[in-house]
Amino acid sequence: MKRRVGQYLMDCLSEMDVEKIFGVPGDFNLAFLDDIISHDKVEWVGNTNELNGSYAADGYARMKGLSALVTTFGVGELSAVNGIAGSYAERVPVIAITGAPTTASEQAGNYVHHSLGEGIFDSYRKMFKEITTDQGYITTDNATTEIPRLINAALAEKRPVHLHLPIDVALSEIEVEETFKPQLPEAQDVSKYIDMVKAKLENASKPVILTGHEINSFDLHDELLKFAEEKQIPVAQLSLGKGAFNEESDYYIGMYDGSVAEPNLREYVDNSDAILNIGAKLTDSATAGFSYEFEFDEVIMLNHHDFKCGDEKVTDIRLPDILRGLNDMDYKNDNDFPEFEPTIEGEAPLNDEPLTQENYFRMLKDFVGQDDVILADQGTSFFGAYSLRLTKDNTFIGQPLWGSIGYTLPATLGSQIADEGRRNLLLIGDGSLQLTVQDISTMIKEGIKPVLFVINNDGYTVERKIHGETAPYNDIPMWDYKKLPEVFGAKDQVKVHDVESTNDLKRMFEAINAKGDYMHLAEIKMAKQDAPEKLEKISKAFAALND
Amino acid sequence: MKRRVGQYLMDCLSEMDVEKIFGVPGDFNLAFLDDIISHDKVEWVGNTNELNGSYAADGYARMKGLSALVTTFGVGELSAVNGIAGSYAERVPVIAITGAPTTASEQAGNYVHHSLGEGIFDSYRKMFKEITTDQGYITTDNATTEIPRLINAALAEKRPVHLHLPIDVALSEIEVEETFKPQLPEAQDVSKYIDMVKAKLENASKPVILTGHEINSFDLHDELLKFAEEKQIPVAQLSLGKGAFNEESDYYIGMYDGSVAEPNLREYVDNSDAILNIGAKLTDSATAGFSYEFEFDEVIMLNHHDFKCGDEKVTDIRLPDILRGLNDMDYKNDNDFPEFEPTIEGEAPLNDEPLTQENYFRMLKDFVGQDDVILADQGTSFFGAYSLRLTKDNTFIGQPLWGSIGYTLPATLGSQIADEGRRNLLLIGDGSLQLTVQDISTMIKEGIKPVLFVINNDGYTVERKIHGETAPYNDIPMWDYKKLPEVFGAKDQVKVHDVESTNDLKRMFEAINAKGDYMHLAEIKMAKQDAPEKLEKISKAFAALND
Repeated sequence: MKRRVGQYLMDCLSEMDVEKIFGVPGDFNLAFLDDIISHDKVEWVGNTNELNGSYAADGYARMKGLSALVTTFGVGELSAVNGIAGSYAERVPVIAITGAPTTASEQAGNYVHHSLGEGIFDSYRKMFKEITTDQGYITTDNATTEIPRLINAALAEKRPVHLHLPIDVALSEIEVEETFKPQLPEAQDVSKYIDMVKAKLENASKPVILTGHEINSFDLHDELLKFAEEKQIPVAQLSLGKGAFNEESDYYIGMYDGSVAEPNLREYVDNSDAILNIGAKLTDSATAGFSYEFEFDEVIMLNHHDFKCGDEKVTDIRLPDILRGLNDMDYKNDNDFPEFEPTIEGEAPLNDEPLTQENYFRMLKDFVGQDDVILADQGTSFFGAYSLRLTKDNTFIGQPLWGSIGYTLPATLGSQIADEGRRNLLLIGDGSLQLTVQDISTMIKEGIKPVLFVINNDGYTVERKIHGETAPYNDIPMWDYKKLPEVFGAKDQVKVHDVESTNDLKRMFEAINAKGDYMHLAEIKMAKQDAPEKLEKISKAFAALND
Repeated sequence: MKRRVGQYLMDCLSEMDVEKIFGVPGDFNLAFLDDIISHDKVEWVGNTNELNGSYAADGYARMKGLSALVTTFGVGELSAVNGIAGSYAERVPVIAITGAPTTASEQAGNYVHHSLGEGIFDSYRKMFKEITTDQGYITTDNATTEIPRLINAALAEKRPVHLHLPIDVALSEIEVEETFKPQLPEAQDVSKYIDMVKAKLENASKPVILTGHEINSFDLHDELLKFAEEKQIPVAQLSLGKGAFNEESDYYIGMYDGSVAEPNLREYVDNSDAILNIGAKLTDSATAGFSYEFEFDEVIMLNHHDFKCGDEKVTDIRLPDILRGLNDMDYKNDNDFPEFEPTIEGEAPLNDEPLTQENYFRMLKDFVGQDDVILADQGTSFFGAYSLRLTKDNTFIGQPLWGSIGYTLPATLGSQIADEGRRNLLLIGDGSLQLTVQDISTMIKEGIKPVLFVINNDGYTVERKIHGETAPYNDIPMWDYKKLPEVFGAKDQVKVHDVESTNDLKRMFEAINAKGDYMHLAEIKMAKQDAPEKLEKISKAFAALND
């Protein structure tokens, strides 16, 4: 079958259920965009800028397992690197496609716009090497091998790849013999390593699983749940990876975040004699500044490409193989373990007093619907929200390892458009929102209906808690957030809410539930220095690390 | 004298007249920001995001000769790379400072947030190597040598440098013996090469100077003017470098842009027997897609690190030395050359008809004040504005080589804050504005008073002209631009204007001149497909290169 290279690329992506393509037009991708907009199975979603596009692609991939971003050479692709690096860090597979000058132009070393003006064309490709798991320069000859190879690499590693696609190549016709079929690496025999884990477990009286983001990336929720429940091992999640384990399970014991975890849980984990770290990373932000009290070297690391048990270290094992091996293991724990104790508890008093973070999260806990998608930006929103107890059908999206503020707003565009049937709740603060605000207009343009809760507490509260509580650099301009939908062209499509008290919050929650067919944006005013308890504690640990 | 490294860095920058520091706080730079806000001679200007910060720093450096941007590790610095790369391409010296994790944290290979989560800390530094002229890892021991070395490198090359500054290093005390004094490379003897140029000129009957952006970067306006006027050689400018030559001079013959230049000028340049390319680059965007008709290899290249005359090529000569050598040359041209012929001419009829691009620029030509700074974004605005005839006291800022749309809005923040006494006029379109809109709020916060002309023509018109005239990917969401100041917290500080006709435009120009003490924002409606004539022509050449 004759296809243009750009069409074939879209064919491959649509085989993996990628239905929306994010990005920004530029003159080195324009003609290729024609093959996107005319493709039967994909739709173009233009973002307001490339950073926002990369965040949206990340949010989409977290829901659908893969996504694609199309930018232009230089100015476009470089604006997206922060987002792509975040996808790399947190293991989210995004196909980053750069529409580039023609092969002839590159070979001639022309002084083209968007180049550094010296006839050199590989500078940006070198930059992408640092933040993608694989890279390719697409040509007419290699398109049917390189494109599948790169998509497979993204799927195997759950990380972004970079495709450099000269515009003449995108438009050239090739003969395509077969449609794309994903090819994952062959399953490996990991029994030798599983035996080591088993030996450790059999001698343990307080085994525990710490789990995290790689379970979400590799979609191993069912496998992990089966392992924990059949082997009767309790599971704590890290904030980097909330959603990895079903929080409704009897084996769920809570969020472990080092010294600030609930006392029962903390004591159990810190004194565990067999910590199975499955798909989790003990980062500073997930552990209140490395404040765990267990011995790091004693932890059994069961991560993708990172197996470690005692002195045995292996880097060529894949996480799906580990989970399969664990489930095949013959073992059952019969020791006691602590029960889940909620961090966010109690009822908020209904009144007209100024709203506090504590009461906000107390009320949110009851508002979150059965299968809502919750996105929480890396500020007070995240540090409050990761303690919410979710159902097995909820999805939680945050970015605590990469921690790029503003990420969740475009990510909500991506996650909501990936499944319009589920309600998306964005929890974000004013400081974060200002970085990426314009993609609210893309939401409006696309007619999607997320619910946006914007905390207006007059600045970078998460920074205030770390350093410079009243310093001017933590102040931000005061915006009139409620007017944003109007500026961005919404007519009656967006319901706007003004919240200053628990009474307001209650009324708003009722209104949102009553008007499910609208997008909602709420400005929620809270005091400048008020923060969720977790943030108060974690920020002290962070401050100590940097001062 | 005892100083903290961060204080010393600010001391050095303020010696070079850098008075404003752009950037965004992050927890790896917060404590260092204390030393910025408390410094006697510098002020912190927080941007709404890092890309905007990098553009603002670029605009500031174009006015003041140097600028500084402070971001945080990973998420911050990577969001700025597009802006820094643009400064590299167009030769604008920006000191890009990354507040980074402590040296101890790096040495331990900790899994810190904003890292890629694998204990590797040099990935971003490698990326900056591609887009900065020099880089350094600041330590307590090397601070007093590395910081001066890097600032000098930026000044010598007029390009950005990258400083990796661990937060513990920023805060540590060092002994400083002397204040920073810029040290430029020693003057070189270039007489041998100048003799070659002279020989070529002496045999020429149609000599011409093509000049461009490097004259602006190295601030060699006086030297170039002296050379042209004393040797009586006519000068044409490229759009990449408007402002390099005094357009009021008798030796100014116009903007040369290849096949689309004014006929007299084009004919003279294309048939010249001695083209002196001084500090200029014959890029695709400056030459309507390389449409010059002279022989490229015959051009005498007198660029920074790029001397070429006939077969002689040298790469270690600096532009200031070349200009000095040219002025010492004994030569005088006595041949005729064409007179300047304005591209934008005629008077616009005053009426209530829909405003056209042609009439917009006709009226702008008379509105521009004696020493205004004009910034024109890389869309219809740039392709119209570069033909405006400016006074010797005007400054023109565009970005035709890098060509990152949205750049000029934050660049206006930077250029206006660099000299609040001169009126800054921003000419930008809706598509471009949407990328970087939020730094309007930084302008409001800083109380500066630029004039923003936002063309609302419903999409990416520059792209429409290249490819996809009515394609949906060139549509953008329709915003209510006039409400932006209100959303961004302006009370009566910003005057808003609505322009749809020449009558409206005239009224607005009068109002702006009458109310010089306000910031102004105008929404100027024009037809979707209407474009300046230059853009119509150049885009056809671009389309041909990419299809």
